[in-house]
Amino acid sequence: MNKIELNPELAPFPKPTALIGALVDGRPNFMDIVWFNRMNRSPNIWGASLNKKHHTLKGIRQNNTFSINLPDTSLVAITDYCGLVSGKDVDKSKLFEIFYGFLKSAPMIAECPVCFECVVHDYVELSDHVIVLGEVKHIYTDERYLTEGVLDPKKMDPIIFTKRGSDGTYWTIGNELGQAWSIGKEIGP
Amino acid sequence: MNKIELNPELAPFPKPTALIGALVDGRPNFMDIVWFNRMNRSPNIWGASLNKKHHTLKGIRQNNTFSINLPDTSLVAITDYCGLVSGKDVDKSKLFEIFYGFLKSAPMIAECPVCFECVVHDYVELSDHVIVLGEVKHIYTDERYLTEGVLDPKKMDPIIFTKRGSDGTYWTIGNELGQAWSIGKEIGP
Repeated sequence: MNKIELNPELAPFPKPTALIGALVDGRPNFMDIVWFNRMNRSPNIWGASLNKKHHTLKGIRQNNTFSINLPDTSLVAITDYCGLVSGKDVDKSKLFEIFYGFLKSAPMIAECPVCFECVVHDYVELSDHVIVLGEVKHIYTDERYLTEGVLDPKKMDPIIFTKRGSDGTYWTIGNELGQAWSIGKEIGP
Repeated sequence: MNKIELNPELAPFPKPTALIGALVDGRPNFMDIVWFNRMNRSPNIWGASLNKKHHTLKGIRQNNTFSINLPDTSLVAITDYCGLVSGKDVDKSKLFEIFYGFLKSAPMIAECPVCFECVVHDYVELSDHVIVLGEVKHIYTDERYLTEGVLDPKKMDPIIFTKRGSDGTYWTIGNELGQAWSIGKEIGP
């Protein structure tokens, strides 16, 4: 074993890429995010960590609602663009076909294969970011992303993000390796 | 637009797959996890959400240290196995070559391309899970995962996890789609 140490500020793990939606001063705004994941089973709570300066966070605090939209790879450039410009400077409400669900204050992106409509459960304040904990109230998709009634990851065609240093790269998902809670059975009882 | 609603308990977004390591009653234990991500920039805090019943969580609370180990695709079966059996019943300390870093109480997996050594920053208690917030103190890798001195995602060869309903699937990362903070410039200024 010959381990070497890297800068502890790095974050080289792969992450999913999504767009968080919120109404900011009444206008739909979207930011791209890779720092998010599920945090609780029941209720289905997701945590999304937003820089305290983000315009989108202002809107989430105004309404205590937000959306998490999963873009497919055809949306990679526009997703990246949402991370390049702030809603303070650019009207991002015209970039997508927007729809609303039951909550009425969480703008969602029709072009995204999967959209979560969330109500804020809590905010966890860290030094430069805030973890927005949101309960998923509704999930929307289109028939074309389903196979035999369930979401098909290959049809969803999500974007994976990796970061090495200051640069970042977007990827497709590749080949199937095996089934969870199954492939491990070859190791032992 | 013709959206359909899905069961709001679903979590169909892609996630990275990792192994959390902790000393439980003095014995190294590992669990697989997909509910984790970065949560703060500086310090570099990651949040990992663990079911309150998990044996590993007991060890984290004992030492307030833990590791996050990123397996490559060659470790997919053993990673899955770590999620099939509990350290309450099975001694998982023999599954890997274990090493320790500066903290001495966060067992890490030598076979994993990247290992984070973390000190607990805080615990956020949810209904069935606890978000363990850990500050990354050290990151370890091997020379063979680097290209020109930085981690190379294709050499790291991480495992992506997707869940449709009750089933889950592991995937490789696929093709490069483009560079972040760059590909979006084609959309606008």
